[in-house]
Amino acid sequence: MRSLWLNTLTKQSLYRLSTKRYSTNNEPKEPVVKTKSIPGPKSIELKKQLDSVQATGTVQFFADYEKSIGNYIYDVDGNILLDVYTQISSVPLGYNHPRLFKVFNNEQNLKTLINRPALGVFPGKEWPDKLHSVLSSIAPKGLNKITTMMCGSCSNENAYKSIFIWYQNKLRGNKPLTEQEKTSCMINIPPGAPKLSILSFKGAFHGRTLGALSTTHSKYIHKLDVPSFDWPIASFPEYKYPLDENVQHNKKEDEKCLSEVQDLIQQYASKNPVAGIVVEPIQSEGGDNEASPEFFRSLQAICKKNGIALLIDEVQTGGGSTGKFWAHEHFGLDGPPDVVTFSKKLQLGGYFHNEDFLPNEPYRIFNTWMGDPGKVLLLEEVVKVIQEEKLLANVDVAGKVLKNGLLSLEKEFPHILNSTRGRGTFLAINCTNTKVRDQIIGALKLHGIQTGGCGDISIRFRPALIFQEYHANIVLDRFRKVLQSF
Amino acid sequence: MRSLWLNTLTKQSLYRLSTKRYSTNNEPKEPVVKTKSIPGPKSIELKKQLDSVQATGTVQFFADYEKSIGNYIYDVDGNILLDVYTQISSVPLGYNHPRLFKVFNNEQNLKTLINRPALGVFPGKEWPDKLHSVLSSIAPKGLNKITTMMCGSCSNENAYKSIFIWYQNKLRGNKPLTEQEKTSCMINIPPGAPKLSILSFKGAFHGRTLGALSTTHSKYIHKLDVPSFDWPIASFPEYKYPLDENVQHNKKEDEKCLSEVQDLIQQYASKNPVAGIVVEPIQSEGGDNEASPEFFRSLQAICKKNGIALLIDEVQTGGGSTGKFWAHEHFGLDGPPDVVTFSKKLQLGGYFHNEDFLPNEPYRIFNTWMGDPGKVLLLEEVVKVIQEEKLLANVDVAGKVLKNGLLSLEKEFPHILNSTRGRGTFLAINCTNTKVRDQIIGALKLHGIQTGGCGDISIRFRPALIFQEYHANIVLDRFRKVLQSF
Repeated sequence: MRSLWLNTLTKQSLYRLSTKRYSTNNEPKEPVVKTKSIPGPKSIELKKQLDSVQATGTVQFFADYEKSIGNYIYDVDGNILLDVYTQISSVPLGYNHPRLFKVFNNEQNLKTLINRPALGVFPGKEWPDKLHSVLSSIAPKGLNKITTMMCGSCSNENAYKSIFIWYQNKLRGNKPLTEQEKTSCMINIPPGAPKLSILSFKGAFHGRTLGALSTTHSKYIHKLDVPSFDWPIASFPEYKYPLDENVQHNKKEDEKCLSEVQDLIQQYASKNPVAGIVVEPIQSEGGDNEASPEFFRSLQAICKKNGIALLIDEVQTGGGSTGKFWAHEHFGLDGPPDVVTFSKKLQLGGYFHNEDFLPNEPYRIFNTWMGDPGKVLLLEEVVKVIQEEKLLANVDVAGKVLKNGLLSLEKEFPHILNSTRGRGTFLAINCTNTKVRDQIIGALKLHGIQTGGCGDISIRFRPALIFQEYHANIVLDRFRKVLQSF
Repeated sequence: MRSLWLNTLTKQSLYRLSTKRYSTNNEPKEPVVKTKSIPGPKSIELKKQLDSVQATGTVQFFADYEKSIGNYIYDVDGNILLDVYTQISSVPLGYNHPRLFKVFNNEQNLKTLINRPALGVFPGKEWPDKLHSVLSSIAPKGLNKITTMMCGSCSNENAYKSIFIWYQNKLRGNKPLTEQEKTSCMINIPPGAPKLSILSFKGAFHGRTLGALSTTHSKYIHKLDVPSFDWPIASFPEYKYPLDENVQHNKKEDEKCLSEVQDLIQQYASKNPVAGIVVEPIQSEGGDNEASPEFFRSLQAICKKNGIALLIDEVQTGGGSTGKFWAHEHFGLDGPPDVVTFSKKLQLGGYFHNEDFLPNEPYRIFNTWMGDPGKVLLLEEVVKVIQEEKLLANVDVAGKVLKNGLLSLEKEFPHILNSTRGRGTFLAINCTNTKVRDQIIGALKLHGIQTGGCGDISIRFRPALIFQEYHANIVLDRFRKVLQSF
């Protein structure tokens, strides 16, 4: 009897400790769904109001961000959903984290927020220190320069520009600019505006502005009717799962795709030479498509051999949800990639790079704001909380529970689910077809779980870094109920 | 005696009233320059620190945003400059405006700030109301739809996309999408990724991402080494000043440029048909180049005649500094332009448009954040202060004093200055050559006035909306001293 009581006490204490550590202590115990459908009546009413000024075709529901807390998003109809999609993977510490709440409860930080500078021209006195203490502290090993931006698309666009400038400077050597270069670029033609390209992969998503969109190939609706650059597009490996039972097939996929990359570099050499390759560590929007560490190492070798830059787009994967701060740390690359872009969980956009990708003249990579110091203040606190609360270790633990649970569900429901994959809590599973996938996502929502789709048939899981084992068990439990009803 | 005393009292009261109204009551009386050169020693030290992580070639000095107040920017060396450049024209109410300071001294607003949603998918419950009460209240007449974005470049990029989609939908009529359209766009080729163009003007600046950069033609250093779309570029009028003495020349300029626009639309019809024209009301970065209301009305007529869209880029001109909230209100257009983009003073980016430019399917114009509700809260207060303190009227009054003063200086120093121009406080003046211009900007700074250059030989004035007559007189007084020393 005494031992049982002790056991209970210990469990309770551990639970309290655990919830305190990961700042989830004010969360509800479980999801609550009050309306028969989501969006509920109040969301539908707000949608009508919004519809008169803005497109609403993508709106799922209206949230109550005053009430939302930790891993739970509250909607205006009183529904409380366990959020494993987190604003398309952009919320690092869940909702209303007490530490973020305090950031602007501070006169100096408030002044940083409301006096937004043109950072490239008149940075504030704190800026060098903030870059060192916040951004340098999370820099991918070997990349000690940072160009700050606003969002993922403009980070990739400007990283591409850095690559083009670097590439042309290599060709130019120490020769001064010619008049022809200066005048031709002003009217959009070579040699000043050269025919160069960035090689990307089928299924990739790197953003939606015109340069970034030329490297995005996940869904036609993103690209239709928009003019594009004629840039090479290689196949991305299509793996079979489980990985350990499909080693040969997957290895062949790697080889086929790498060989395509090499062929395309040759093919484009005469018309639009490849200056760089852009790749996601896990293709996210395109369907959570993974490639092996060997694939990425070979890709880096191809880049080095051909004198072209390797850009790893960590907009969605960066910030810890794969169990490492940068997903490419899983690959054991031979030295750092040339450029790593980020946004989303990092609150602002930007890219890390080495000295070579720093333009040699002022105003080549520039815009009015060049980032936002107010967002860096939020990132500062995010990084501190990740370190203090050991959230990467938490991601590993919670991710294992969720992944193993998904693998079990896949075995229980092989006619509906397959191909569980991913790292940390950055996970996905495939459904039989698009219709079934969409039905499951809808049913999960009505069971209190907010997930997201990706690719044609996948469900992606993108919980916050404070997502824990017991949250994973709630997700798995509700998922099982949904599958049983199919 | 009594009358003199009364007069003084009245002047003091008026001054107090005036300074209170425009929130400049805590400003210093005049600029203070303490160091022999700017950047001073502390700025130079910080530049060294920053240089190890980020490009610093464009940094003028490090500011102290805790101390900066109203129209005055303080640097780390104790210099206090009257700022008529305002972070490249992006500060509406000066530094540390008390009303902006209060915005986040409010739990609800703080929660909006730290829980940044994916606005297109999970907007907060306040979003429809904020769009109506804040953004609709400043919408250009006739444009009742708003797409929110983050910055000027992405506003233009997405506006171009809206125009391309609109243009292709017109061609497509009610026909459903073909398989060829869906598959070809995925590999960047027609018909899905059509050969279409946006016509722009020489000297224009519309941003630096690859689509926007294809329409930017102000300085070669912005464009060199970056691949570009082959899109048509027309000449922009080059006026002689004063306008009333050069009516014939300037009218011919209008005609020449409009004729070029028509010719280019024809020339590009077979290779890259023009779907839209993008134009600034005053070309800012390119040299504060104006065009007449007649020019803009004719341009709109050409667009209507050819079934192409007119996009007015008000990123720099929008927000009140021309004396109207939108500069194109000065032109007496025949109905609204099709699209108006904004950013800078409006705290976030975006564009106003009518129903026709709302994509007909979800996810065509989309990104993770789709703007930032935290910035809309700042904009809400900015708009209230502009209305309550009648700042557009203030801009008119202060602008007249500054412009008349510049015209006087031009007469006093005709061997150095010419071509004073602009509207409201959005003003510019030309110098004899680039070297003289740069020397004057440097000397003005050492006399306590922060201005900016534009084009090759122009100085631009971009004070905040709280800039008043007596600030204009300080600028003019210091400017005269600089010119006398030449």
